[in-house]
Amino acid sequence: MIKVGIVGGTGYTGVELLRLLATHPEVELQAITSRSEAGRPVSAIYESLRGHVDLSFSEPDIDTLTACDLVFFATPNGTAMKMAPALLDSGTRIIDLAADFRLKAPALWEQWYGMPHACEDLLAEAVYGLPELNREQIRSARLVANPGCYPTASALGLLPLVEAGLVDTGSLVADCKSGVSGAGRSANAAMLMGEVGESFKAYSVAGHRHLPEIKQTLGWLTDKTVGLTFVPHLLPMIRGIHATLYARLTGEADLQSLFEERYRGEPFVDVMPAGSHPETRSVRGVNHCRIAIHRPQGGDTVVVLSVIDNLTKGAAGQAVQNMNLMFGLDEDTGLTQVALSP
Amino acid sequence: MIKVGIVGGTGYTGVELLRLLATHPEVELQAITSRSEAGRPVSAIYESLRGHVDLSFSEPDIDTLTACDLVFFATPNGTAMKMAPALLDSGTRIIDLAADFRLKAPALWEQWYGMPHACEDLLAEAVYGLPELNREQIRSARLVANPGCYPTASALGLLPLVEAGLVDTGSLVADCKSGVSGAGRSANAAMLMGEVGESFKAYSVAGHRHLPEIKQTLGWLTDKTVGLTFVPHLLPMIRGIHATLYARLTGEADLQSLFEERYRGEPFVDVMPAGSHPETRSVRGVNHCRIAIHRPQGGDTVVVLSVIDNLTKGAAGQAVQNMNLMFGLDEDTGLTQVALSP
Amino acid sequence: MIKVGIVGGTGYTGVELLRLLATHPEVELQAITSRSEAGRPVSAIYESLRGHVDLSFSEPDIDTLTACDLVFFATPNGTAMKMAPALLDSGTRIIDLAADFRLKAPALWEQWYGMPHACEDLLAEAVYGLPELNREQIRSARLVANPGCYPTASALGLLPLVEAGLVDTGSLVADCKSGVSGAGRSANAAMLMGEVGESFKAYSVAGHRHLPEIKQTLGWLTDKTVGLTFVPHLLPMIRGIHATLYARLTGEADLQSLFEERYRGEPFVDVMPAGSHPETRSVRGVNHCRIAIHRPQGGDTVVVLSVIDNLTKGAAGQAVQNMNLMFGLDEDTGLTQVALSP
Amino acid sequence: MIKVGIVGGTGYTGVELLRLLATHPEVELQAITSRSEAGRPVSAIYESLRGHVDLSFSEPDIDTLTACDLVFFATPNGTAMKMAPALLDSGTRIIDLAADFRLKAPALWEQWYGMPHACEDLLAEAVYGLPELNREQIRSARLVANPGCYPTASALGLLPLVEAGLVDTGSLVADCKSGVSGAGRSANAAMLMGEVGESFKAYSVAGHRHLPEIKQTLGWLTDKTVGLTFVPHLLPMIRGIHATLYARLTGEADLQSLFEERYRGEPFVDVMPAGSHPETRSVRGVNHCRIAIHRPQGGDTVVVLSVIDNLTKGAAGQAVQNMNLMFGLDEDTGLTQVALSP
Repeated sequence: MIKVGIVGGTGYTGVELLRLLATHPEVELQAITSRSEAGRPVSAIYESLRGHVDLSFSEPDIDTLTACDLVFFATPNGTAMKMAPALLDSGTRIIDLAADFRLKAPALWEQWYGMPHACEDLLAEAVYGLPELNREQIRSARLVANPGCYPTASALGLLPLVEAGLVDTGSLVADCKSGVSGAGRSANAAMLMGEVGESFKAYSVAGHRHLPEIKQTLGWLTDKTVGLTFVPHLLPMIRGIHATLYARLTGEADLQSLFEERYRGEPFVDVMPAGSHPETRSVRGVNHCRIAIHRPQGGDTVVVLSVIDNLTKGAAGQAVQNMNLMFGLDEDTGLTQVALSP
Repeated sequence: MIKVGIVGGTGYTGVELLRLLATHPEVELQAITSRSEAGRPVSAIYESLRGHVDLSFSEPDIDTLTACDLVFFATPNGTAMKMAPALLDSGTRIIDLAADFRLKAPALWEQWYGMPHACEDLLAEAVYGLPELNREQIRSARLVANPGCYPTASALGLLPLVEAGLVDTGSLVADCKSGVSGAGRSANAAMLMGEVGESFKAYSVAGHRHLPEIKQTLGWLTDKTVGLTFVPHLLPMIRGIHATLYARLTGEADLQSLFEERYRGEPFVDVMPAGSHPETRSVRGVNHCRIAIHRPQGGDTVVVLSVIDNLTKGAAGQAVQNMNLMFGLDEDTGLTQVALSP
Repeated sequence: MIKVGIVGGTGYTGVELLRLLATHPEVELQAITSRSEAGRPVSAIYESLRGHVDLSFSEPDIDTLTACDLVFFATPNGTAMKMAPALLDSGTRIIDLAADFRLKAPALWEQWYGMPHACEDLLAEAVYGLPELNREQIRSARLVANPGCYPTASALGLLPLVEAGLVDTGSLVADCKSGVSGAGRSANAAMLMGEVGESFKAYSVAGHRHLPEIKQTLGWLTDKTVGLTFVPHLLPMIRGIHATLYARLTGEADLQSLFEERYRGEPFVDVMPAGSHPETRSVRGVNHCRIAIHRPQGGDTVVVLSVIDNLTKGAAGQAVQNMNLMFGLDEDTGLTQVALSP
Repeated sequence: MIKVGIVGGTGYTGVELLRLLATHPEVELQAITSRSEAGRPVSAIYESLRGHVDLSFSEPDIDTLTACDLVFFATPNGTAMKMAPALLDSGTRIIDLAADFRLKAPALWEQWYGMPHACEDLLAEAVYGLPELNREQIRSARLVANPGCYPTASALGLLPLVEAGLVDTGSLVADCKSGVSGAGRSANAAMLMGEVGESFKAYSVAGHRHLPEIKQTLGWLTDKTVGLTFVPHLLPMIRGIHATLYARLTGEADLQSLFEERYRGEPFVDVMPAGSHPETRSVRGVNHCRIAIHRPQGGDTVVVLSVIDNLTKGAAGQAVQNMNLMFGLDEDTGLTQVALSP
């Protein structure tokens, strides 16, 4: 049994982690911390966990955490980087669901997250936790940077094309749409149902923090310059990301086969039949990414449709997948649920 | 392994059964029939089942079905009663998720369902599959009538009060609200999202088929006359039923304790702390019923709040619970998921 | 032209008032105040008002307000009662959309709103602004207490029955459901779309502030004791209230005719044909209340279905209706829109 | 007063037309036809029209229609083209809200709509009813082809860029999202709330009928080849279209000024301040298109955000705008409502 701690469990990422870990056969949940809710039973905040999680929130205590084999950080950006060195020194491994270790360049971190990085020396060691790209490094990693939600959907959709050198990497477009749970659970008038229900809009078109992350991932796959226009939008629903990805073809290939080959054997990437239109509900609550490839009207623009659940493959599910790899378990342990549809 | 067949699997009840059975450790799915979709892979209709269910829909074939240990009927009303005798004769047990065997009086069936009953002789044998009421009879039943969704939420909320003789059974009120999945998946302009989204209304106030079913259940618990006003409403959401139940107290008791005692040990009924307001999302996708008891302003009206997922405890989940009982399994086998919240 | 000021215009009630007043032919909007947003154009907060409202929010300034013929308070409870005396003294009339002047008994106010009343002497003078009940007094009122949303829907649905002495007033039930806009626009994690979308629950079952208000109104209509069980619920949609009202008949009458007679000539109450089920979308954005009367199964329980838009007839629309009465205009001036459906 | 008839008024476009015409000061509604609902009061199908529209649906009768000054067709594709010649011959003018007269090339019509055109000779005469492009021709037109919803949002967003020759017209991308009302009101299981609620997907990526229409409009503005990738998506909400438009800049210009100049004086196009993110609810129920222009990270890709209400500016509202032009009224007559937000 893996002894697991969670730092910061009151947000949506935290409760999703709890949902998955509560039924994971190889996990023993040791502690879940929250300064604001310390002492309160987890199930008092999340009715859905009644009967599944008996723990109460506790103050973040370093001794409790270093007694764990693994600590998940489901905290705001900037928290994990302060606690990581002490945990790693004591032999506790870390999966950070926030952004602290995603970007390799400290200057880029500071530019996009507005604070200097607290432990730059760990950035090189941290493994970007996209198993479909970095599976082997994840197995032995001490510190895994769990990818962002948009970056997961976008990278999985573009990866085969960029790896194969088949598209103009200088003019990529990622038009992404996310459910509101991506914005978290803190009090914010802009995310009231009265504000975001029955409406739709783009946001952060000038620049969103996931832009450098996606560009970094794609940059690992090609020597060419990566130019990406990334436009996130807010959907009037709770869970799900749909990335609609546009790239100009620079060579010919059987795109359907390319994707099928690239993802053959992947437990959580489903390349759908040609002509498909994946729907976000088909991955609601599960760790899958479903992908369809189109070439409208036989032109030179390829359109890739990629859907995930932002809280599962886009956050907590992928974190559990990474944990499974790090601890030598079957990659899908505890992740075999069927999507809740309808 | 229980050999299972499903008749009529293209509706929401059918796909929910498939979701639960696909990960049930003791079930071997043999056949799923649909005249309209025969030959088509199940996962072509429900993307969510890709990778979980390899079967294709087949024509309803009596030999295939009688080779099963158990057949679920997820069909329109009036279908199961025609096939039941042949299946039972061959030793196959049946759980009917439709209404064919719910009402004991043939005349009442005919009055509310508009057709004569095809096998009245089986009505007496059929066990009404509410485990919290009929657990022992279900274990040995050949034929289980799976309760309706509103009747499940309403009966579980009123049962302790009526059994204890604490309320005026002549003036009960069940104000119930259901998500749209309760109306099924057939083409019906009245259930378009453009018609039912962002709106709310009552329906069938003059008389709904679940009225005689709830009255029948309550009648089993008391010698007094049961008078019930049942008003169903349609919620602009997909899953979930909330029953708000009103009864006039005729005696004094610690209502909270009454409910806790009545449901102690029940794996799927959660009596919440006094003062709670259960939310439907807390049971989304799971087989639980959560109940809270109120006595507003200390008056003589007791208000019980009862929530279930109409497709799970209100249909397919309860059917699996009944199957577990019928085949001697732990009652919660395959039903240990955590609700998907948010 | 009526010179109008609005105090506190950043909430949903405020923006709804602006929507209605912007196209009202007899209104000249003088000022709209907000401490937090002073200096900011109204249309910067509400895109929907771009091109319709050129005003900016201003600090609440007593001189500006006393220069108005009428001031609407769209403020939190407890604000209007502090400013009312000065405004009335200067000849400015007031419509308070908050609760400050709704309850006649100061002790009741203090009990339910948790603060002593600041100007008890005005409580007797204030007219409860339900035109269908108090039309003549409203015409000459200096100070109108605009009714609450639930009280409007409930009172209009019960009023004919109670006035006629046809029901047992001691055991009334109002099972009410409201869209989320009723909870206002302030930052509140409990009202995030991630919390209230795709879910349903009751709240404040132990006691809600609208309970004494409804009881007070019904008490004006009968000498008998009023006993009311009021259970509000939160709908996963933005606008609309549906009150499902239950009463035990103590006499015989043609209920359909009773309602039609009582509301004949009322511009904003629509008694629907017998057997109807009004839907909230049919009054979305308009000042109408639609009502249907049922007597299920011919029993002695009458069920009244009453729908309004909580922001319109339940708040800003009724306020404009009151204004029209106070200033001698046609009652429906500026209120002739057609509901937005779908 | 303009004598108006509507052919085919039972769909969402029809009811939206009725909503707008019911309060239009210069319109006298003569007839509204529907074969399936003939004889039934309009308000029996649409509660929202109770008290506003007294007409009943009637059989489509040529004499009644030719007695009108103007007939709107809110019919399925292929109906208007059969009735148009007779109406025009009798001096009745026509606005077709379907697609019959949108495409100028008969072969293109046949290719995309799967039937030969019934009156090719009228295609040249028909005026494409986008007032921002064809205002003068509309004034004198006998036959107006009301634009599609996606084409309206897309064309208004791209028009200034293409007219100015500032972008590579060969690689345009229109990533569009529509509420479900765009799919109409006919019984279709795929549009049940249980199917499309809380989910999101693309559709018709291989080719959608609005593709040739958008390309035709853009082709009128440039001599260069128009290459467009158009991907429509279905939003889990009822009203609203958001077009996210991508174009590669080939020259330099102050894009904000370009748009502001192009649309100066336009009553229904609102160029928002630089940096804005228009939301669909800001145009709910109104005839406006709101547009914002972005150039993310100062790159060579321009991103235009364009929102309309698909039923108003995308259908019935634009039809009324066209009617106003055709009959010499102020262009915004009957179209001065404020958007319903929240």
